[in-house]
Amino acid sequence: MDYKNIIRTIPDWPSPGVSFKDITPVLADADAFKAAIDDMCAPFMDAGITKVFGAEARGFFFGTTMAYKLGAGFIPARKAGKLPYVTLGEEYTLEYGKAVIEVHKDDVTSDDRILIVDDVLATGGTACAKAHLIDKLGAELVGYSFFIELDFLNGRDQLLKHDVPIHSLVRYQ
Amino acid sequence: MDYKNIIRTIPDWPSPGVSFKDITPVLADADAFKAAIDDMCAPFMDAGITKVFGAEARGFFFGTTMAYKLGAGFIPARKAGKLPYVTLGEEYTLEYGKAVIEVHKDDVTSDDRILIVDDVLATGGTACAKAHLIDKLGAELVGYSFFIELDFLNGRDQLLKHDVPIHSLVRYQ
Repeated sequence: MDYKNIIRTIPDWPSPGVSFKDITPVLADADAFKAAIDDMCAPFMDAGITKVFGAEARGFFFGTTMAYKLGAGFIPARKAGKLPYVTLGEEYTLEYGKAVIEVHKDDVTSDDRILIVDDVLATGGTACAKAHLIDKLGAELVGYSFFIELDFLNGRDQLLKHDVPIHSLVRYQ
Repeated sequence: MDYKNIIRTIPDWPSPGVSFKDITPVLADADAFKAAIDDMCAPFMDAGITKVFGAEARGFFFGTTMAYKLGAGFIPARKAGKLPYVTLGEEYTLEYGKAVIEVHKDDVTSDDRILIVDDVLATGGTACAKAHLIDKLGAELVGYSFFIELDFLNGRDQLLKHDVPIHSLVRYQ
């Protein structure tokens, strides 16, 4: 599947100078969406994944569907204050300032083997924060699966300390 | 599947007097999540659905996965200003005040047969707004599929004018 022909590039969005990769045409195209899910799952089909961990909001698109295909549960990471039960939070750095993502503590047990999923690997801030949450909750991080990786932001370097596979379908130099 | 035993009730959240139905334990339970997706899709497997239409953010959990299972595309409805391309918006009423959801215009064509999906049917405001967007874009609304329906809020009454099936897995009187 030639995903780059389906992904839409939006110049100067959300701010001047940023070239945004819009994945909604991939979601809307049944064949492309199915291929993306299957290809993002492929390296992990026999990895014994018990939970997929995805972040609000675009991480939910791929994460929940991959959980279904992998026969796993899904753990949502949400912005601070959005989850109603007992949470654990992790701060991460944005281009300007900081943000916090939270997870329900009882969504993760020490038996879990977890795959982190997101639409885009950019600077690696949220993926790294999710990996820290998994460590703190005593579960095992098995790998990362991204639809897009923006190589020029070097997010991959932030993720190397866990020594697990990092799988990206579409890479932009 | 006894979903009511897995759904968590959070008293007084997000505001005093509200008894919130937390579906995250269903997502985290691989068997329950798979059953929910399969049961929510069941009445529509042979309905020729081309797109599933779900709203930010909890509507993405079920909607994307159902699109995958139904062999359909997925259309995200998002809060105003979140979608980067040419959008059509629809205002709807909240308990206090109003909000707007938007859709990418080119996500919907007049050939589309669309299923509206959400985690909860409450007052029916967002589901009704989504149905209006489908009408305005000239596609056909085939039905609604909800995980939970709060009968006491009478949201179903808002959806009757389209005369299409309304399917809910778990109902609270």
